[in-house]
Amino acid sequence: MRVDGRQTNQLRPVTITTGINKHAEGSVLIEVGDTKVICTASVEERVPPFMKGQGKGWITAEYAMLPRATHSRNQREAAKGKLTGRTMEIQRLIGRALRSVVDLKALGERTITLDCDVIQADGGTRTTSITGAFIALAIAVHKLADNAKFDKYPITDFLGSVSVGVIQERALLDLNYEEDSKAKVDMNVVMTGSGKFVEVQGTGEESPFTREELNQLLALGEEGIGELIVKQKEVLGPIAARIGG
Amino acid sequence: MRVDGRQTNQLRPVTITTGINKHAEGSVLIEVGDTKVICTASVEERVPPFMKGQGKGWITAEYAMLPRATHSRNQREAAKGKLTGRTMEIQRLIGRALRSVVDLKALGERTITLDCDVIQADGGTRTTSITGAFIALAIAVHKLADNAKFDKYPITDFLGSVSVGVIQERALLDLNYEEDSKAKVDMNVVMTGSGKFVEVQGTGEESPFTREELNQLLALGEEGIGELIVKQKEVLGPIAARIGG
Amino acid sequence: MRVDGRQTNQLRPVTITTGINKHAEGSVLIEVGDTKVICTASVEERVPPFMKGQGKGWITAEYAMLPRATHSRNQREAAKGKLTGRTMEIQRLIGRALRSVVDLKALGERTITLDCDVIQADGGTRTTSITGAFIALAIAVHKLADNAKFDKYPITDFLGSVSVGVIQERALLDLNYEEDSKAKVDMNVVMTGSGKFVEVQGTGEESPFTREELNQLLALGEEGIGELIVKQKEVLGPIAARIGG
Amino acid sequence: MRVDGRQTNQLRPVTITTGINKHAEGSVLIEVGDTKVICTASVEERVPPFMKGQGKGWITAEYAMLPRATHSRNQREAAKGKLTGRTMEIQRLIGRALRSVVDLKALGERTITLDCDVIQADGGTRTTSITGAFIALAIAVHKLADNAKFDKYPITDFLGSVSVGVIQERALLDLNYEEDSKAKVDMNVVMTGSGKFVEVQGTGEESPFTREELNQLLALGEEGIGELIVKQKEVLGPIAARIGG
Amino acid sequence: MRVDGRQTNQLRPVTITTGINKHAEGSVLIEVGDTKVICTASVEERVPPFMKGQGKGWITAEYAMLPRATHSRNQREAAKGKLTGRTMEIQRLIGRALRSVVDLKALGERTITLDCDVIQADGGTRTTSITGAFIALAIAVHKLADNAKFDKYPITDFLGSVSVGVIQERALLDLNYEEDSKAKVDMNVVMTGSGKFVEVQGTGEESPFTREELNQLLALGEEGIGELIVKQKEVLGPIAARIGG
Amino acid sequence: MRVDGRQTNQLRPVTITTGINKHAEGSVLIEVGDTKVICTASVEERVPPFMKGQGKGWITAEYAMLPRATHSRNQREAAKGKLTGRTMEIQRLIGRALRSVVDLKALGERTITLDCDVIQADGGTRTTSITGAFIALAIAVHKLADNAKFDKYPITDFLGSVSVGVIQERALLDLNYEEDSKAKVDMNVVMTGSGKFVEVQGTGEESPFTREELNQLLALGEEGIGELIVKQKEVLGPIAARIGG
Repeated sequence: MRVDGRQTNQLRPVTITTGINKHAEGSVLIEVGDTKVICTASVEERVPPFMKGQGKGWITAEYAMLPRATHSRNQREAAKGKLTGRTMEIQRLIGRALRSVVDLKALGERTITLDCDVIQADGGTRTTSITGAFIALAIAVHKLADNAKFDKYPITDFLGSVSVGVIQERALLDLNYEEDSKAKVDMNVVMTGSGKFVEVQGTGEESPFTREELNQLLALGEEGIGELIVKQKEVLGPIAARIGG
Repeated sequence: MRVDGRQTNQLRPVTITTGINKHAEGSVLIEVGDTKVICTASVEERVPPFMKGQGKGWITAEYAMLPRATHSRNQREAAKGKLTGRTMEIQRLIGRALRSVVDLKALGERTITLDCDVIQADGGTRTTSITGAFIALAIAVHKLADNAKFDKYPITDFLGSVSVGVIQERALLDLNYEEDSKAKVDMNVVMTGSGKFVEVQGTGEESPFTREELNQLLALGEEGIGELIVKQKEVLGPIAARIGG
Repeated sequence: MRVDGRQTNQLRPVTITTGINKHAEGSVLIEVGDTKVICTASVEERVPPFMKGQGKGWITAEYAMLPRATHSRNQREAAKGKLTGRTMEIQRLIGRALRSVVDLKALGERTITLDCDVIQADGGTRTTSITGAFIALAIAVHKLADNAKFDKYPITDFLGSVSVGVIQERALLDLNYEEDSKAKVDMNVVMTGSGKFVEVQGTGEESPFTREELNQLLALGEEGIGELIVKQKEVLGPIAARIGG
Repeated sequence: MRVDGRQTNQLRPVTITTGINKHAEGSVLIEVGDTKVICTASVEERVPPFMKGQGKGWITAEYAMLPRATHSRNQREAAKGKLTGRTMEIQRLIGRALRSVVDLKALGERTITLDCDVIQADGGTRTTSITGAFIALAIAVHKLADNAKFDKYPITDFLGSVSVGVIQERALLDLNYEEDSKAKVDMNVVMTGSGKFVEVQGTGEESPFTREELNQLLALGEEGIGELIVKQKEVLGPIAARIGG
Repeated sequence: MRVDGRQTNQLRPVTITTGINKHAEGSVLIEVGDTKVICTASVEERVPPFMKGQGKGWITAEYAMLPRATHSRNQREAAKGKLTGRTMEIQRLIGRALRSVVDLKALGERTITLDCDVIQADGGTRTTSITGAFIALAIAVHKLADNAKFDKYPITDFLGSVSVGVIQERALLDLNYEEDSKAKVDMNVVMTGSGKFVEVQGTGEESPFTREELNQLLALGEEGIGELIVKQKEVLGPIAARIGG
Repeated sequence: MRVDGRQTNQLRPVTITTGINKHAEGSVLIEVGDTKVICTASVEERVPPFMKGQGKGWITAEYAMLPRATHSRNQREAAKGKLTGRTMEIQRLIGRALRSVVDLKALGERTITLDCDVIQADGGTRTTSITGAFIALAIAVHKLADNAKFDKYPITDFLGSVSVGVIQERALLDLNYEEDSKAKVDMNVVMTGSGKFVEVQGTGEESPFTREELNQLLALGEEGIGELIVKQKEVLGPIAARIGG
């Protein structure tokens, strides 16, 4: 039995609330256990300089934690005057993952920025951000579709993400903070609705891992992401129908 | 009639939810109309270098807005690498206001940091932050009281804040964003539970104002803050009793 | 009697020397007691990006202190790599105050930057900067008038500023540094030549203040600013005649 | 046949030259095809603040490219005033990977910094840095062993790294720059001498990948790293014998 | 004849006013033609970290120009967030030059910071800063002598500086801005009261120069510095007597 | 006899290897004793903003040291977030020196950036950078000549640089690190192939120097630079013939 009574292959309770921001084109509060992230999608009718004149759009993401999202207070990055390496790594991951299910040509010369702000952290903030940001993105693109008259619908597939890890020789799904800090192997998996991998990032800083362990972790990740994508479809309702269409 | 149907001296609906963060010593989500601010109080058993060895505590505040708290997305200050003048001005104001109702000597050598993060903005974010931060502070100090065994209770009075302004020759209480952008005079008022002024900041950039207008604005501010402090007392319940005691 | 022998409603000696910089379009050295500020006005025939294409001009201000303007040496902000919150707050105040007496449309697409550099500080540096910067601005606009052929003269009124405060239950005009550091209430007032308020910033960090005290402070401020504006008129001579015309 | 005539599972020529810096405790120039990296190990008899008093050492890495290491010149990060997200991500990876084969307790309260400076880039700079930095580290620890009289030898295993990718449905080992820019899937693998995984980072930004493709990539990576570790042993000679001892 | 009617070997008028800052331990306003620099000396009873425990003092300098010291306004370095290369080069030069005539051991564990702030610039700001800063330093050390009871007087010689240059094949002393911008060779010379060189910095960016030209420039510099040191002695009066004693 | 057995007027062994970077338009590894610098020339078909529209080109230089180029490791400037004053001073010197032998008009609207990266430092890194950067520049301009069809060849003369200094009353050529740290006078000299001075920077921080010493140092510098330029001609071979043509 795990510290919070879950099975090895059991996700924490997932709650997804859409429309939580009156200004954003898409917004969601996603809660996975005690991890809570606000994801907003902001649409701008222009692309960054390096994308100009290519007839393509851009998807980018930013990630931050409120100072007291964590057990003890962290200094704000704005006060430090720079982003930490961890933040940069995470926001590059989120952006890259979302772009893998967007046809940038079909999107046209627009930028959608996904802001993932962690209100409360209890492990898995980057994977929860990806799962939530996908929903905010889907809502924003759906809203855009009325005016943009896309030839091809720009979202090509669903996208979910979860963390998995090895603690005391057992592979576990969806680690909370306490589990994460004890894990000898830690892996973040991002997959599409059609069951393909978008990102696999496994780290064995505490102890290297075998091919066998890697396989177990990937199987758990696949299972968990499948469940998360089911929830995404429920939440999105009719919006879901157009994705990948 | 105002744009949202309120009377000139009518506050927007106020909702205060405490305990919204499991890590923070005090936390509150305060909603004044569509302005929503998360305030957390973080207690540390040390003081900043400039306060060392004085046998006194310190209260400080930080303020930020999520990038899409506003109508169009703002760049993060962490990405810019520095705080804007507006942010610095606001967090200096919040900290100064809260310190005016705390006996730093009674608090002892501790720092309480009030983080005010605006989730959604519709005018009055700095005044709402002060009103909300006071509650988070009161909860944190109450929790502290069990162990700290204060000789004197460190919070000496209640503290609330509201914005007022002049639009088309009428003095109005609690401006929303639309009103704020049309106001020729804009004033933020901070007052104590005993009806004294802590901060009065009036600006007539668009048009200077008369002593008569100033008096009307102060009267409206006094009325609004009185109501906000009534709500603070309701929310704090038994905690309220010790304040100023 | 005050520490330097002044009456409660008595300004320190004021000396204003114009033309102290051969490059600037307007320049002044203003001395209020031992507080000395060099104010220069620099005219540029362009506006900042956010003002482009509106057919309007812009007035902005910057403020700094020489490292040894104060009793002990302060580190330069250029060496720190950023402006302090105090500096940002002050330069925003100066710019806002000056704009309140300039018709930006009448000014045309130009920027006038007022640099206020404190050579020696003894209290009231921000209010002295405003009073002095107004003169530098008036000189620069006057010089501009020959070529710019304004339809309407862009300066609409005089502008002066002074600090007031409460020390040991007495309201005092124009605090020097020693008084300022003992004041329980500190207020900066900015007013126009026609006796209207542009900024009222009162702070009772040490102790909240009553409506009665506020009224006394405003009356003192009004009196002091009146005297400062008389001096501005003397210094400006014929230039004064066109202001508000 | 690949663009440079290699087999799918063939590494580029590898040249490793040790002792190329007279000051550093360990140094190596590693060349993998046209990718050239100088790796130096610097030993300091102290640990960073967050490691103080734990009786353990620390291994950290820094990574940079000379401005003209690449096809067109890149601006220096020192001139920009900050590290890019890519650099931070890479140096975090190198440090983490090296720590996985070091017993920090056995190392004692010392810091070893591995500087990886890319002199010329042609794909695989991060994996080449890891393979080269391990050698510099091994030399530095060997040198240290004379004086430090380790109870247990601090390096517990060999460590190598290589990139793999999928181009036109074929899995390829050790991509050069031209291949890397065409790859639909890109993966960096870090493994120990005993054949365990330390890091697996696979990205399918251009196109998601299947479990089958992942398996092929891992197999290729395992094969390539095996060869690199054989070369490390040759280069290290007698030093190799103590590793993992 | 030069543009302002001077002889080739003639300095501009020099005015030196001491005691212009009531807080600083030493202060001077030095005017060389239209170049005006405020120099203050600030004494602190501690040394920077890299000098600790050596029983020696430290002399350092900072240099800045007010934004409108020059013909057109320059952005403040504090606003840019960093010092320019030119500023760093100049303040390193000033500090180095002053240290050449101070016995740091005799000074004891103190730091004297010389702030050179250019109020108005018309060529030769760095050399004027050195000449002026020496006086401020001398005054501060003299004041210090009463309490510090130096075994040996810490200032070992006088120090002056001037610029020289070649314009249209003529070597000229003390270039003003107009001359400086036309010079094909530009040289700054720093010398002691006993006629030795402390710094010689000659630059022929526009056109290289011969040994013969170099000799002429050095001769002119020697002559000009001799006159400046006579003025320093007049201004310092009785303080001068102890220098080098 | 000097510490490494050289005569007072003897250079350290000089090795120059060209073509060490496959991407750069010109590249060289220059070794002067144990000082090793990689110099690359990067050509861009545009000029910086301040040079636009003048029909002229621009030559600029950047300088850096690898962290472990020196005896103990230095923090990277990219990690500090800013360039040190020393680096700025050096890169300004290198750029200025190179521009003195380039006819910017003849070069046309192009920028050539010389990157000087010190791989290993043992004194004289700035002078070695100038001597090496000249060669990289010459190679790049030669390559450019085929397409650019210059009316006039843009390189007008050779350029070399060396350090000289006084140790124990003896003037020495080409100081290594150990000598440099003992020198009471330190001078960097830059000269053209036709024997004229481009830069003379002499510093007597430890002790001022006489005209006689200055003359000896200049003579030594002239002799050493003469030898360096002979080597440049050998290395450049046929490319040398066009210089100054």
